[in-house]
Amino acid sequence: MVRLRRLLLVLVALVGVSPLGAQQNLWQTKGVTSPEVLDDNSVVVRLYAPEAKSVVLKCDFAPGGNVAMQRGDDGVWEYRSEPLASELYCYRFSIDGMADIVDPASTYVMRDVGSLMSYFIIAGERGDIYAPQGVKHGSLSRVWAPMGDGRERRMVVYTPAGYERGKGKYPVLYLLHGMGGDEEAWVATGRVVEIMDNLIAQGKAEPMIVVMTNGCTKHLSAPGYSEEGMFSPYMSGSMDGSFEAMFPTVVEWVDATYRTIAKPEKRAIAGLSMGGFHAMQISKHYPAMFDYVGLFSAAIFRGESGVEMYEDLEQRLVKQFEHKPKLYWIAIGSDDFLYQENVEYRALLDKLGCEYLYRESTGGHEWRNWRIYLCEFVEMLFKK
Amino acid sequence: MVRLRRLLLVLVALVGVSPLGAQQNLWQTKGVTSPEVLDDNSVVVRLYAPEAKSVVLKCDFAPGGNVAMQRGDDGVWEYRSEPLASELYCYRFSIDGMADIVDPASTYVMRDVGSLMSYFIIAGERGDIYAPQGVKHGSLSRVWAPMGDGRERRMVVYTPAGYERGKGKYPVLYLLHGMGGDEEAWVATGRVVEIMDNLIAQGKAEPMIVVMTNGCTKHLSAPGYSEEGMFSPYMSGSMDGSFEAMFPTVVEWVDATYRTIAKPEKRAIAGLSMGGFHAMQISKHYPAMFDYVGLFSAAIFRGESGVEMYEDLEQRLVKQFEHKPKLYWIAIGSDDFLYQENVEYRALLDKLGCEYLYRESTGGHEWRNWRIYLCEFVEMLFKK
Repeated sequence: MVRLRRLLLVLVALVGVSPLGAQQNLWQTKGVTSPEVLDDNSVVVRLYAPEAKSVVLKCDFAPGGNVAMQRGDDGVWEYRSEPLASELYCYRFSIDGMADIVDPASTYVMRDVGSLMSYFIIAGERGDIYAPQGVKHGSLSRVWAPMGDGRERRMVVYTPAGYERGKGKYPVLYLLHGMGGDEEAWVATGRVVEIMDNLIAQGKAEPMIVVMTNGCTKHLSAPGYSEEGMFSPYMSGSMDGSFEAMFPTVVEWVDATYRTIAKPEKRAIAGLSMGGFHAMQISKHYPAMFDYVGLFSAAIFRGESGVEMYEDLEQRLVKQFEHKPKLYWIAIGSDDFLYQENVEYRALLDKLGCEYLYRESTGGHEWRNWRIYLCEFVEMLFKK
Repeated sequence: MVRLRRLLLVLVALVGVSPLGAQQNLWQTKGVTSPEVLDDNSVVVRLYAPEAKSVVLKCDFAPGGNVAMQRGDDGVWEYRSEPLASELYCYRFSIDGMADIVDPASTYVMRDVGSLMSYFIIAGERGDIYAPQGVKHGSLSRVWAPMGDGRERRMVVYTPAGYERGKGKYPVLYLLHGMGGDEEAWVATGRVVEIMDNLIAQGKAEPMIVVMTNGCTKHLSAPGYSEEGMFSPYMSGSMDGSFEAMFPTVVEWVDATYRTIAKPEKRAIAGLSMGGFHAMQISKHYPAMFDYVGLFSAAIFRGESGVEMYEDLEQRLVKQFEHKPKLYWIAIGSDDFLYQENVEYRALLDKLGCEYLYRESTGGHEWRNWRIYLCEFVEMLFKK
């Protein structure tokens, strides 16, 4: 009782400070609970906006994606979804024409290129892979590494549980982002840490190191982490051969810095969209480097023209496949705007007699698919 | 020209996807530029809110902290500040009574306990220390470590540039957060990475490892990173002796995992508010562990009663100071709500003949001060 009273005094002392704008900002309390996941896996999103005339919820869990919220007498707008499948979901508000408002009642926000989005996870099958569980956790490090043009760039490295205190060597997956993304994309939106921790703990994936580079060679890092300053994230990329040309330096640095098994049969490269293009080009250009290749919704035929590295595609593919990669995996959604060029690419591989595995999902060019592809891909790695 | 045209085709292909709510969300473009720093270091904050009746900017750079924004004919609300001193500044909007809205035109958001805030940096003296510069960068790792009660908890570790590829051993600063904070607080709001990178590069601070623990033993990690799930960040802490009791396990793990110089003269502990209390208690309870102690706005007399470790303060302080710490540094702002108990604590140290260094700043219980204290403290470390 004395302890409780003392604690209350502490709370009162520390709470009695005013929010941002005054001197002593520590925290705030939120007026509404949002989002709230109910027992039947429906979710209620709420927004206190007493004067608003119209609030639209933009999300990936309501039919059509845009849904008008309903105002309660207390000025709290509300939307209750149907029961949802286990997944990670994103949303924002548009309020009287004011767009891109993240949920002020939640601190769970992720950035995808130039967009902030509020998010939540519905537990169950997929959601449990994307959420931290009570298992051994790997480490995630932001490091700077030379990338072949004399400059250091930032990369994000996942090392599996036990790495720091162990002596073992590990295989490496190089995981590449899409156009407009950066070295943070696969962690923030791709849930790499949770996926790897959980699949390794379940024995479904081998313990491995995951290296996430910045594939836009114009930049040194994701926005805000380098001398380039706090630029606005925008759609930028490198499909001019420069990133691919730097990649041997990256692999060399990783092999010299981490306890890796520096052999092609213990190296994988995969990427989404532009990163799928990069994975295709890099694995083709350095045919003895990677025995595992994953192309997720790959922008196969989008390279700039006049780039030497992108020429002689057929001849170089034939050379790559002479090394018999253990897995060449192509995945895409049936609604993806890059679907047709993946059809054409598979036709080319068929013509050349190059063996690959094909996975077609529903859906389009979206993170929901890329997380699923990552899960499926890492389960196939390094087991042969 | 061909390259440019090809690139444009790529851009058009990739931009032509619809925003969140539809299938293929990649990014968005923002309608207004906000914040914009002008040549005279005034800043313009803008918000497109065509139907709003009142928009208040809540910030730490306008007189009084709350300022009414002005609506333009185009529905864009605007506030232009006076020229600002070089600093890191935070802000949010209140729109017709709807509070806590971060800037939808910026992706630069930081979390302090349960609050998201938009932020920007004005270059110059302080701002240049808080912003990444073109210097060698250290690494930042999120790791899990046993903490004495058989459970692993998450911690954040800064290692200085060159650590991964070098063989040298380094001193260690243990840096503790305040009540409601967690292992992410010093990085997000305290700008530890930028401060350490820049002060080390300038030769003002020794290269050192910085370890940031989670000082709330009820939790395993910052919200969202453990099996505890996506709980709402709230004001929680541990002032019951449990965190302090675990600390030798932390130090032991760090010394066994990193290349540290495992000697008291190469170990420092510092914290803000509750973390200052922890630093005081830990350094007192394990008197041969730390030769450098920093108390930033410390909650000196806020421990729960009935905790054995917090008893016999005078006797244990005397014992600690028999080891002659190289630096015992107390810093607080003249407007801090904990000012008076720091006066009393210094009187006690004076009475006991314990030598300390005292730094009084202006301002209150706020991150602006804690970043300054950190800069000043690390410049004094490990040089004797």
